[in-house]
Amino acid sequence: MVAFRGIWTQTFWKAVSGEFLAMLIFAFLSLGSTISWSENQQLVLMSLCFGLSLATMIQCFGHISGTHINPAVTISLVCIKKLSLAKAIFYVAAQCLGAVVGAGLLYLVTPADRVGNLGATLVNSSLSAGQGLLIEIIITFQLVFNVVASSDTKRNDVKGSIALAVGYSVTIGHLFAINYTGASMNPARSFGPAVIMGIWDNHWVYWVGPLMGGISAAALYEYLYCPDPELKCLLKEVLAKATKPSGGKHREVEAIRSQEEADDLITKPGTAHVIDIEKGEEKKEKDSSGEMMSSV
Amino acid sequence: MVAFRGIWTQTFWKAVSGEFLAMLIFAFLSLGSTISWSENQQLVLMSLCFGLSLATMIQCFGHISGTHINPAVTISLVCIKKLSLAKAIFYVAAQCLGAVVGAGLLYLVTPADRVGNLGATLVNSSLSAGQGLLIEIIITFQLVFNVVASSDTKRNDVKGSIALAVGYSVTIGHLFAINYTGASMNPARSFGPAVIMGIWDNHWVYWVGPLMGGISAAALYEYLYCPDPELKCLLKEVLAKATKPSGGKHREVEAIRSQEEADDLITKPGTAHVIDIEKGEEKKEKDSSGEMMSSV
Amino acid sequence: MVAFRGIWTQTFWKAVSGEFLAMLIFAFLSLGSTISWSENQQLVLMSLCFGLSLATMIQCFGHISGTHINPAVTISLVCIKKLSLAKAIFYVAAQCLGAVVGAGLLYLVTPADRVGNLGATLVNSSLSAGQGLLIEIIITFQLVFNVVASSDTKRNDVKGSIALAVGYSVTIGHLFAINYTGASMNPARSFGPAVIMGIWDNHWVYWVGPLMGGISAAALYEYLYCPDPELKCLLKEVLAKATKPSGGKHREVEAIRSQEEADDLITKPGTAHVIDIEKGEEKKEKDSSGEMMSSV
Amino acid sequence: MVAFRGIWTQTFWKAVSGEFLAMLIFAFLSLGSTISWSENQQLVLMSLCFGLSLATMIQCFGHISGTHINPAVTISLVCIKKLSLAKAIFYVAAQCLGAVVGAGLLYLVTPADRVGNLGATLVNSSLSAGQGLLIEIIITFQLVFNVVASSDTKRNDVKGSIALAVGYSVTIGHLFAINYTGASMNPARSFGPAVIMGIWDNHWVYWVGPLMGGISAAALYEYLYCPDPELKCLLKEVLAKATKPSGGKHREVEAIRSQEEADDLITKPGTAHVIDIEKGEEKKEKDSSGEMMSSV
Repeated sequence: MVAFRGIWTQTFWKAVSGEFLAMLIFAFLSLGSTISWSENQQLVLMSLCFGLSLATMIQCFGHISGTHINPAVTISLVCIKKLSLAKAIFYVAAQCLGAVVGAGLLYLVTPADRVGNLGATLVNSSLSAGQGLLIEIIITFQLVFNVVASSDTKRNDVKGSIALAVGYSVTIGHLFAINYTGASMNPARSFGPAVIMGIWDNHWVYWVGPLMGGISAAALYEYLYCPDPELKCLLKEVLAKATKPSGGKHREVEAIRSQEEADDLITKPGTAHVIDIEKGEEKKEKDSSGEMMSSV
Repeated sequence: MVAFRGIWTQTFWKAVSGEFLAMLIFAFLSLGSTISWSENQQLVLMSLCFGLSLATMIQCFGHISGTHINPAVTISLVCIKKLSLAKAIFYVAAQCLGAVVGAGLLYLVTPADRVGNLGATLVNSSLSAGQGLLIEIIITFQLVFNVVASSDTKRNDVKGSIALAVGYSVTIGHLFAINYTGASMNPARSFGPAVIMGIWDNHWVYWVGPLMGGISAAALYEYLYCPDPELKCLLKEVLAKATKPSGGKHREVEAIRSQEEADDLITKPGTAHVIDIEKGEEKKEKDSSGEMMSSV
Repeated sequence: MVAFRGIWTQTFWKAVSGEFLAMLIFAFLSLGSTISWSENQQLVLMSLCFGLSLATMIQCFGHISGTHINPAVTISLVCIKKLSLAKAIFYVAAQCLGAVVGAGLLYLVTPADRVGNLGATLVNSSLSAGQGLLIEIIITFQLVFNVVASSDTKRNDVKGSIALAVGYSVTIGHLFAINYTGASMNPARSFGPAVIMGIWDNHWVYWVGPLMGGISAAALYEYLYCPDPELKCLLKEVLAKATKPSGGKHREVEAIRSQEEADDLITKPGTAHVIDIEKGEEKKEKDSSGEMMSSV
Repeated sequence: MVAFRGIWTQTFWKAVSGEFLAMLIFAFLSLGSTISWSENQQLVLMSLCFGLSLATMIQCFGHISGTHINPAVTISLVCIKKLSLAKAIFYVAAQCLGAVVGAGLLYLVTPADRVGNLGATLVNSSLSAGQGLLIEIIITFQLVFNVVASSDTKRNDVKGSIALAVGYSVTIGHLFAINYTGASMNPARSFGPAVIMGIWDNHWVYWVGPLMGGISAAALYEYLYCPDPELKCLLKEVLAKATKPSGGKHREVEAIRSQEEADDLITKPGTAHVIDIEKGEEKKEKDSSGEMMSSV
């Protein structure tokens, strides 16, 4: 299938294995920090461990895979067409697998009387699922907004480590929300311990919340606040064509295509596009028009 | 009105909505970190959450709105003529509204028995309002001095993330002053929970203190320590003219204008100027002399 | 001996003494943070002290010695041929000596009733040595991967302080693993207090674990994820030669040498190579073929 | 007097007032973080507050005064001839005055029952003064080494914020040594609360320790590890001249002067030199030979 072009390359498989390895280490370390060895919960400790572990993984694997290690990030990038759905499927699979293996390894090395729920995320019993959902939406919104804004190559005002910046976005989510929802912001991070411990209470919250927050953040940034120059031109062109009648058959076909492109600007998580402007890679695919046609 | 020129642009409304959104998220997360789930107050947790939340918001919205999300910063920039009063009004309104909405959302998702005062700032009962005021002045002084010094384009010795630098300025304010005054440094941050919870004890302290601290920091930096080259020339010119008698009518008019400009150098929060050198924008308005005349 | 060429230079002895001094200060400060002055263990305090002390030492001595101050880092670099074994021997000796002196000084200044085990690393009594080994492998894996990835001159996506990035890699290891194994990641750091206090329980774990984790991280990075361009060419050449028959005697000799070089690509900690691409030094040794022959 | 040339400039007085203001704020905030509002001492809180307050002050005043706000740093720079003694006297006076005023303001705003010893540094009662001295020497050594190494313009391997790097040097000193000596590393920081509270027990430790540690760090860095190129040439020239007999009277005079210069290379805190290569200023004083003669 055309959609899967660009996947059977060494670089892509390095990236997918990088996602797996980074997620494994991230899950092992961060979930490990939630293991309780004394009575008092260590909120600052956990928050720093989650945030700095993500920062470390970005430092380690940023140039190999982009280090999403978060399905909410991966799927949000699909929605703003920075990643193809085909590639995203492998990314998300690698992330979930990595989280399960990481949580499993942690289970192996932790004394049975200390395991607890292995860092599985649970909505606080005094909150409704809807309240939990709202919290996950907002904390993932700021995380994905930060990821998209920090990696925006059009900006030149960002100094300092991007890895650290994304890391403390995760840290503030935890500092605020550990007592509310466990502060997931990451479906894979919730999936790993859920599989190992068999805890599925309100698990849907940790997929729906982060995805809603992430997608709306990415869409808001890309389509409202800082659209790419190409996107801007496209939008203008489409609007211009919409106002004047098309001159002939060939023209009509173009107009229809443009209309399709315009539709694409509205984020549709369910549909697949193969325009593939991967993070860090500058080359544009020349035959994107052909790829635009192919959906999985 | 001439004063509001430059406001009815898409860029400005993006900036204002950015301030609203950033303040909403900042208030939601940081105020959320003050919610007490156990007996012992978590001072380090709160301090990190406030500081890193601000850093995250600057990382996210810095290129969209400058991310003041603090009326003390906005009004200080007006006083040193880096922002027009007209624009500042919308900024401050967006900040206050964002803080109220953020605090309101937090109220919605927090169990009633945990809400407490929702992070509203109160002067410690063993302190007088004057002591609280002095503390707010000093901690806001260092924050605004940091903002102005870090974003000074004349400096080339600043490496590393400005977002983080401003963030830890907020952190140290909290590490020191949470037990004294709640460490506001930000009228909007105090305004949000005050509206939701109806707590208005000594609320004036959190407007007067931050504004006095912020304005004196900005003025000290801009007019004493590191004046802009243009400002320097202007000052010299004015002084030169003051010493020799003006040669004619036209000359006199100029001298009067110069005198007015010299007066402007002393910060007058109450008057409005439309010289608008916004953060990040390099273009100078050519017809500034005309705008100098127009006050709101 | 040829292997020791480049050792009798002032620069090298500055580097070795730098390693000694940096390790001494690192051990003194970080081990000092483990001294317990109250009942409750301060996990965040220790984690920050270890991480930021390493960051400080890299900031201080990075340009003098590269600041490994960790035999796991030094030996991993030998395995990927970034350091000669001959030099590494002096580095490791200096690190161990520095740790012993640092721990000794700490012993001198600490009241006898507070010394405890002077920060010696011990596997938690509810864990097996194998479990401890696995943890040390994983936490050192991420540390050395970070060191190698952050100092990769082929990357241009790393902004921000490398010292700090490596520092928080150490911090997350501690945040997670202090309760499990003491979070060594560094044989010399474990060796120092072990010598002073005579605590040798499971001491092998703190050599085998970090070395296995470190070497596998460095090898994975260098040979799988981000091979040097030269290495890539070499690999291709070797593979090309392997597929077509060699044309004569001289050709055969070359093929054999190439084969040897290919073998060298698999990490062999036990053998010594003198290709010496030291961190920060750009010059390539011209007569590397001759040095390739000389093993210690 | 010639020694005081370059002092009666606006820039210098801005620098001195900057030192005063920065020290005032630093003392107010950091000492404030030591005020105990509950039973349990907050070691991480204090450590972060001292470190990040210094980082903030460097961010604010770095380009105005260099932000030593520490007599140990100022005097160490005099010893390696990066600052004239004449200027240093004003710096140290401003620092001590700033610390006293900062501590005084803190005293004014703190309830009497919370003041305690206002953050005055005391050697732990189970330690001897000598042990305290050794600790102060080592923790100031790493601080001043960091300052000198981070601000070394010959390095190009330092990325990230220097302000933050120096800040966490202060943080690790506190994380380790608060329980030992109060972790001063800064005579002025100890002097401020000592004046206000009249606590002078072992006060000499906080002058002698930081000065010994700081001077030895600066000297080690400048004369052993990373001498300036000019200094290197000078040393070589001197050595060359020492080995061959001088050719005449004029030659002899030169040799004597060179000898003097060589002597100057050994740090003599008591003598004053006016070679003034101030941080950040690139201009070299042409008539340095003349100034070499003038001692205060």
